Amino acid sequence: MRILILGGDGYLGWPTAMHFSAQGDEVLVVDNFCKRRIEMEDGIEPLEPIPTLHRRVALWKEVTGKEIGLRVGDLVNHRFIYSVLEEFQPDAIVHYAEQPSAPYSMQGREQAVFTQSNNVIGNLNLLFAMKKHCPDAHLVKLGTMGEYGTPNIDIEEGYIEIEHKGRKDVLPFPKQPMSFYHLSKVHDSHNIMFACKTWKLRATDLNQAVVYGIDTDQTRLHPELRTSFHYDAVFGTVLNRFCVQAVMGIPLTVYGKGGQTRGILNIRDTLQCVELAVRNPAVAGECRVFNQLTEVFSIMEMARMVKDAAEQHGFKVQLDHITNPRVEKEEHYFNPVHTKLVDLGLKPRLLSEELLEHMLQYIQSVRDKVNPATIMPTISWSR
Amino acid sequence: MRILILGGDGYLGWPTAMHFSAQGDEVLVVDNFCKRRIEMEDGIEPLEPIPTLHRRVALWKEVTGKEIGLRVGDLVNHRFIYSVLEEFQPDAIVHYAEQPSAPYSMQGREQAVFTQSNNVIGNLNLLFAMKKHCPDAHLVKLGTMGEYGTPNIDIEEGYIEIEHKGRKDVLPFPKQPMSFYHLSKVHDSHNIMFACKTWKLRATDLNQAVVYGIDTDQTRLHPELRTSFHYDAVFGTVLNRFCVQAVMGIPLTVYGKGGQTRGILNIRDTLQCVELAVRNPAVAGECRVFNQLTEVFSIMEMARMVKDAAEQHGFKVQLDHITNPRVEKEEHYFNPVHTKLVDLGLKPRLLSEELLEHMLQYIQSVRDKVNPATIMPTISWSR
Repeated sequence: MRILILGGDGYLGWPTAMHFSAQGDEVLVVDNFCKRRIEMEDGIEPLEPIPTLHRRVALWKEVTGKEIGLRVGDLVNHRFIYSVLEEFQPDAIVHYAEQPSAPYSMQGREQAVFTQSNNVIGNLNLLFAMKKHCPDAHLVKLGTMGEYGTPNIDIEEGYIEIEHKGRKDVLPFPKQPMSFYHLSKVHDSHNIMFACKTWKLRATDLNQAVVYGIDTDQTRLHPELRTSFHYDAVFGTVLNRFCVQAVMGIPLTVYGKGGQTRGILNIRDTLQCVELAVRNPAVAGECRVFNQLTEVFSIMEMARMVKDAAEQHGFKVQLDHITNPRVEKEEHYFNPVHTKLVDLGLKPRLLSEELLEHMLQYIQSVRDKVNPATIMPTISWSR
Repeated sequence: MRILILGGDGYLGWPTAMHFSAQGDEVLVVDNFCKRRIEMEDGIEPLEPIPTLHRRVALWKEVTGKEIGLRVGDLVNHRFIYSVLEEFQPDAIVHYAEQPSAPYSMQGREQAVFTQSNNVIGNLNLLFAMKKHCPDAHLVKLGTMGEYGTPNIDIEEGYIEIEHKGRKDVLPFPKQPMSFYHLSKVHDSHNIMFACKTWKLRATDLNQAVVYGIDTDQTRLHPELRTSFHYDAVFGTVLNRFCVQAVMGIPLTVYGKGGQTRGILNIRDTLQCVELAVRNPAVAGECRVFNQLTEVFSIMEMARMVKDAAEQHGFKVQLDHITNPRVEKEEHYFNPVHTKLVDLGLKPRLLSEELLEHMLQYIQSVRDKVNPATIMPTISWSR
């Protein structure tokens, strides 16, 4: 298949590109490097340096003999994305090309506006470009479980049958997003549903949970094919951060009570899920929604699992309940349905001691590169 | 009260400004004249020319002795709206300042992107400006009934109690917006709900139906205090357009079957509703939603009512089912709840033969100004 990966420089975009290329698909990656710019702005770095995308694409060719195409540009520039679609004529478009940090989006007006205009307008331009140049292509769009918030009912996959005053209908699941970033994804979801209904485009909206993990079959092929591992308060996801804290002897920073409950999945399962979506496309006019997670834990449960795994390897680990920088419920019901990807064949790779051990060992091996100054949250949600 | 009217040059903004000023409130109007620019772009005009906002503000002073303040600027320029709020310190902000046309938003990529970035970013800047300079002010935001689409269940006012698998919660009512314009209002609604919850702002989101009518107590005070009356395919609302067609001997253009059912309200009731919201503010942290309509009719019912009223005054009226330029259900259930404004004291002024007669008479008196070339829809929703 001809697969376009938007946001191909990122934590998930780059492994996704290699994953498809390794299977013989024709892959083109696109990035505007906006995440690298934000890293500069906030003085943060991935745990190990990530070579330029040009360098990695060249290295991929050296190592595997396979070509990944590269175009540098910004979806907010519609001429760019129109020309990419016109020339590449993708069968599937995997769209990761959005500002991905909730804390960044809450830093202030400028960051909130950047997040929403970059994400929403970029995605709108993409929809118009698809309409014009490849209306039969399948859009696989990365959303987030944070679009739903924490309702007191089970979270269905995108749609819910509601019975009300003796009548019923299947309607989009109500959204209660948790930051200006999560809001941008809700806006995208609504725009995509509308484009599918009105223009008969086809899309899969993957409401992904918190991703953890370091490597995939392809990142392991060469040290410089690694993907960016973030543990900082801006881009670091909670499990990755806890593992770094455990290794460094920094107390695990649990935000508030830690009863916040979230879905998680391994980075390798992200690739599996995206591939299942790509290989089993939506039909014309359909906007499917999959909840992309494999397990559910509270923040306290995650902290205790990391503590237990780390202590078995001789690390001394403390938990620290710090003031919650976010406005969120710290104790709540949370039961997301996630069967659609399993029905397509997903074989989850669950968080086990072995996986945590592998992460802890890796972090230990590069511990002198950790910058502890970037771990504590400095961005507050409330006014 | 100190009342800021954003979008004070518009069909509803200008009458709202005069309505509050007449009662002794201190009123400041803001506009960037983007609707007038779009009129230029598309070669359309209101039925009668509308003097500049500067001229109308000066005339209002001449006629009534009362002052309405005026600031010209764009909400997308955050420095502008920050300075307005810092200086004026409003008690209430009535926010009409958005690109208001669904067909315009469907004209092409540029118009869709303009609509969403103008509306969403302008509203985001406003929320940040309120947070900084007047966090206790009450935002009265104009939404639209078109945010809901046409679900097969009753449309509640913004929130719905959902019982699901033995649990329940009150959640935002699911949205199925009908154009990129309606989508922009859905995005705003989500952003506003989040800001109220996270920053303890207070807001009322008025999901307004299709407004019709020509004048209010204040527009009648002087011919040049009139408000803009549109009957064209871009800004004209359906009843206003039907009345013009009836007078001009042009067949009433019913889109498709005409079973599309919509709420309507008189322009005077818009003023009543906005005033009820302003005088009875939301509490801190609350984002109320009111469905702002007084009656519900199908397009065919509206066409027949206009035909009947016009024929009683000697006009000869035909109905013409033209190809529907929109993608929408032409037969559907539609039952929006609208009791919250009534509970606050709304006394609806229902569409009667008398109201239609008044509109027909007015249009007849200026019939030589009608430009029939702007009535037929030229913008198609589908690809």
